Amino acid sequence: MARWEPDARGRFLRAAIELFTEQGYDQTTVAQIAGRAGLTKTTFFRHFPDKREVLFFGQPVLVQLAAEAVAAAPADAGPLEAVGAGVSAMASAHTDEQREYGSQLQAVVAATNELRERALFKHASIADAIAGALRGRGVTEPAAGIAGELGARAYHLGFDRWLEATNTRPLPELAQEALDEFRKAVAALL
Amino acid sequence: MARWEPDARGRFLRAAIELFTEQGYDQTTVAQIAGRAGLTKTTFFRHFPDKREVLFFGQPVLVQLAAEAVAAAPADAGPLEAVGAGVSAMASAHTDEQREYGSQLQAVVAATNELRERALFKHASIADAIAGALRGRGVTEPAAGIAGELGARAYHLGFDRWLEATNTRPLPELAQEALDEFRKAVAALL
Repeated sequence: MARWEPDARGRFLRAAIELFTEQGYDQTTVAQIAGRAGLTKTTFFRHFPDKREVLFFGQPVLVQLAAEAVAAAPADAGPLEAVGAGVSAMASAHTDEQREYGSQLQAVVAATNELRERALFKHASIADAIAGALRGRGVTEPAAGIAGELGARAYHLGFDRWLEATNTRPLPELAQEALDEFRKAVAALL
Repeated sequence: MARWEPDARGRFLRAAIELFTEQGYDQTTVAQIAGRAGLTKTTFFRHFPDKREVLFFGQPVLVQLAAEAVAAAPADAGPLEAVGAGVSAMASAHTDEQREYGSQLQAVVAATNELRERALFKHASIADAIAGALRGRGVTEPAAGIAGELGARAYHLGFDRWLEATNTRPLPELAQEALDEFRKAVAALL
């Protein structure tokens, strides 16, 4: 049985972001990431199937938080109010440390097609989770799917604004504000 | 200079769908696809960088048609009306032959994570193209991005319905109808 390594996933993540930034994604091996993290390849593969997934290991938790919060919203909450609960739950899960390396992480993803496609899958997973929870509340398609998409977009726009160098506001507030902007923008489209 | 091969891309596409269905995506090589198509690997690589892109070669044309039609919509058309022009342009580009192998193509994509992620990238490319053309018409964000997403979703929902075995209606009509449903669903969300 392997020893327990404190915060192994976080250490692999920070090492991967550093190396992908310094030398490029394609040029970086799992052995290099493990070396930089001060851990072993064996430990790496206990946590991730490949170097790409290091950057996305938070996805299942986010998806679960969103789905649970939408489901747990008050029975009389409207669909977008329930979406707001899901967005807040995701936003509240982020730490100040994530803000520190967030811009670098986004730059790495933007520079590599394979990672951009993976990021779209994460976005779609969040949107689908919210949509599924809304259907559980009796919201029908296509409204549930569209509301899920708005929730995922609000979360991501809030996250982008949170990372801005001049920002001093908390992520949950920024994400909720983004959702409110989406609601107004959609109303103006009709 | 290589000989001109009539409909080489279509032949590769049909061969790839057959082989991916029969033996799986991972198990299929470019050499096998070329053999089934009655063409050479060299010809394959003149058209596609890898076996994955065979299934998505129509994307640039769709993206261009959507963007041009949105831009060319009457000056007094509202954002969703312009989106409708883009959706119709994409829908009008499909042939009856595409309907014949469409369900098989969708099953292949659904069965493989790598292809599902690529399909999300295609979806996002269409949404982004529509959003960009809307911004060119003076529509601001986030409304342009949301309207682009609705357009991409309407196109895809129309396409799904077009493929249904019992369907007898043309794709442009189905896609426009899906966009109308989205407009109503969004209105009900607010």
